[in-house]
Amino acid sequence: MLIKGASLLQNGSLLKDQDILIEDNRISKIGQNLRDEEVMDAHGKLAIPGLVNGHTHLAMTLLRGYADDMELMSWLKQKIWPLESLLKPQDIRCGVKLGCLELIRFGVTCYNDMYYFMDDTARATREMGLRAVLSGVVFDMRPELLKEVEPFLQRWKDDPLIRPAVGPHAIYTCSEETLLQAGDLARRHEVMMHIHLSETRQEVEDCMMTNGSTPVEYLESMGLLGPGTGAAHCVWLSPRDIRILGERKVNVFHNPVSNLKLASGVAPVVRLLEAGANVCLGTDGASSNNNLSIFEEMKVAAVLQKNYTGQPTALPAPQAWQMATENAYRAFGLNMGLREGALADLVLIDLHRPWFKPETNMISHLVYSMAGGVDTTIVNGRVLMRDGIIPGEEKIMLGAEECFRDLISR
Amino acid sequence: MLIKGASLLQNGSLLKDQDILIEDNRISKIGQNLRDEEVMDAHGKLAIPGLVNGHTHLAMTLLRGYADDMELMSWLKQKIWPLESLLKPQDIRCGVKLGCLELIRFGVTCYNDMYYFMDDTARATREMGLRAVLSGVVFDMRPELLKEVEPFLQRWKDDPLIRPAVGPHAIYTCSEETLLQAGDLARRHEVMMHIHLSETRQEVEDCMMTNGSTPVEYLESMGLLGPGTGAAHCVWLSPRDIRILGERKVNVFHNPVSNLKLASGVAPVVRLLEAGANVCLGTDGASSNNNLSIFEEMKVAAVLQKNYTGQPTALPAPQAWQMATENAYRAFGLNMGLREGALADLVLIDLHRPWFKPETNMISHLVYSMAGGVDTTIVNGRVLMRDGIIPGEEKIMLGAEECFRDLISR
Repeated sequence: MLIKGASLLQNGSLLKDQDILIEDNRISKIGQNLRDEEVMDAHGKLAIPGLVNGHTHLAMTLLRGYADDMELMSWLKQKIWPLESLLKPQDIRCGVKLGCLELIRFGVTCYNDMYYFMDDTARATREMGLRAVLSGVVFDMRPELLKEVEPFLQRWKDDPLIRPAVGPHAIYTCSEETLLQAGDLARRHEVMMHIHLSETRQEVEDCMMTNGSTPVEYLESMGLLGPGTGAAHCVWLSPRDIRILGERKVNVFHNPVSNLKLASGVAPVVRLLEAGANVCLGTDGASSNNNLSIFEEMKVAAVLQKNYTGQPTALPAPQAWQMATENAYRAFGLNMGLREGALADLVLIDLHRPWFKPETNMISHLVYSMAGGVDTTIVNGRVLMRDGIIPGEEKIMLGAEECFRDLISR
Repeated sequence: MLIKGASLLQNGSLLKDQDILIEDNRISKIGQNLRDEEVMDAHGKLAIPGLVNGHTHLAMTLLRGYADDMELMSWLKQKIWPLESLLKPQDIRCGVKLGCLELIRFGVTCYNDMYYFMDDTARATREMGLRAVLSGVVFDMRPELLKEVEPFLQRWKDDPLIRPAVGPHAIYTCSEETLLQAGDLARRHEVMMHIHLSETRQEVEDCMMTNGSTPVEYLESMGLLGPGTGAAHCVWLSPRDIRILGERKVNVFHNPVSNLKLASGVAPVVRLLEAGANVCLGTDGASSNNNLSIFEEMKVAAVLQKNYTGQPTALPAPQAWQMATENAYRAFGLNMGLREGALADLVLIDLHRPWFKPETNMISHLVYSMAGGVDTTIVNGRVLMRDGIIPGEEKIMLGAEECFRDLISR
């Protein structure tokens, strides 16, 4: 397939009238006057590489708007956990598909998830055509979960779209032994270990009381931090924690909107980046955000760091953009990007929208002005949305609605 | 015109299959099985009253993305002021029209502006069909501006869409005499006095040094605070300031995104509301935001207050919604709202988008999940956008692009 006449970003400036040749699941050539039998016209459109949603719980789209504006513990105990205990595999598939629709519409071609029923999540994602890193969640309250991880890793290790991972939920839900076993599994299978880390002040205080160390120091003492670790949130960090996360090249999944909505705080992103941590962006689940837009996350991350550091120069647009693209590709070892040889995960944005005018600075517009215009989404060489149309979307939305009605009536 | 089969929000719950009859510029009837010759089908769409952008500088859309991620003073001195000094009336008209396109696409039917060349702004706005409150800006560096205000007020006082106002820029750009004269003009003509107030820490510190009082106390001592005052920003406030703004029923225009991007701080919105101030939402100009979406502002305002107060229950979705609608209608004395007898300023949103599913709680979805779907915008009974199409949009975007190219080449 040949994408004809697109605009591209090259070193921050706009390059017009470029052709992109896709062969099989790769970008094979970028240039001018290319030829192919199947042509997609992209004049007036901007081609960007696929964005990555670095931390979410996709099936929770099914609970979107079900409980907002509540205290964390009453939210969990009264609303989320009771419903979650009723979830069946079919609900997960409905929620995942609904979430995939959203990701496709937001130009996200790969997401990193942690939830229950990961085989169902994987199957639904594959059906929708997205790329995903899926962590089978592990915590002590349900010891069977740990046993399910290894077969899950085995089943999906060779899939072209799905990359399995291990997801010990957090230090306060997993014992030291569970954490070590999860780390061992991740190491042996060479997959990511994905964990919630230092999300709330309470978590850090409790860990100090119990272990005499911060959650970061605690994981470090077990040898569980490294470039294969993905740590979501990382809001409450000591200077030493920041140094450790940097030195170990940990992948930090920053979720600014969720952190604000749950009143968890503001993560020290600028200092994490300076220390050498690989900071990426995530939305968290649709119960605490409530959408899956990485564009929104880029903007909020950037403006929030400016205010948090008191420096309007902090986290400039190109850095926010990098967090949603290159940093995430590195975290997951994905050969993505808009260049020859990379996986054909790309997105066309229709520039005929007032928020993209005048064309002063496209990276600034993508980070600070974007309010829609994603028009085409391609994953692994397959067109998932074209001209804003996703085949079968209506049926998936109806299915999710029915699933939710059924769930709350159980 | 009859809008047929729309969904509506009534006391927070979704009412389906409602007809809305518009006669001339009013909503004359809402109910079922209404009849009219001209029918607009709205099945599967949600009708909401028009949103209000309570503080912006619309023509600055022309400078969108031109300068970001800079220190406030170097931003102003090196980038914004030099370009602004070159602005001609034709640029203003280009920028305003571009801004109106965006407002129409974001479901905003009325905006409150403060800038130069307000006659041009008014004419361009009227041409685009939007409603606006326009403050002729006043500051001491250009004494002729004050003289231009009264004729401006006279010229526009009877316009059906434009409401003129007086805009003393700020306490640090206007002398006491200028402020008093502006206040007198506003009182005599019964129009709003619109001012930037306590936006930065510096402004408050300087005022304490010069006047021995806070900016709020300073205006209060001159008798300039009341329900006819519109104060933008109000970030740095003492407990006494908050009490004064509440007692005087001042309209506070909160601009959370701009305040974050410029590292100005977080306004104490919850306490302002508790004190009785009428808090509304604004985007500020496109140089410090960089779009004009009040949906984005609702979400950021709500999640930011949760984190700022440490309470996930703070500023719940219905309150954020109220700030963008009813509070703003009250501020500007507009008979707006989705009810019989109100001005026909309304918006249809296509609910066939994944972020509106499942239909658990539509107010939550509008505030926290919204990422596009505004389909039809009607102002004063006139359809400005239908099915996502604004006639003449392409030409306006091209004109803005040309204007900007011309401006930077001067």
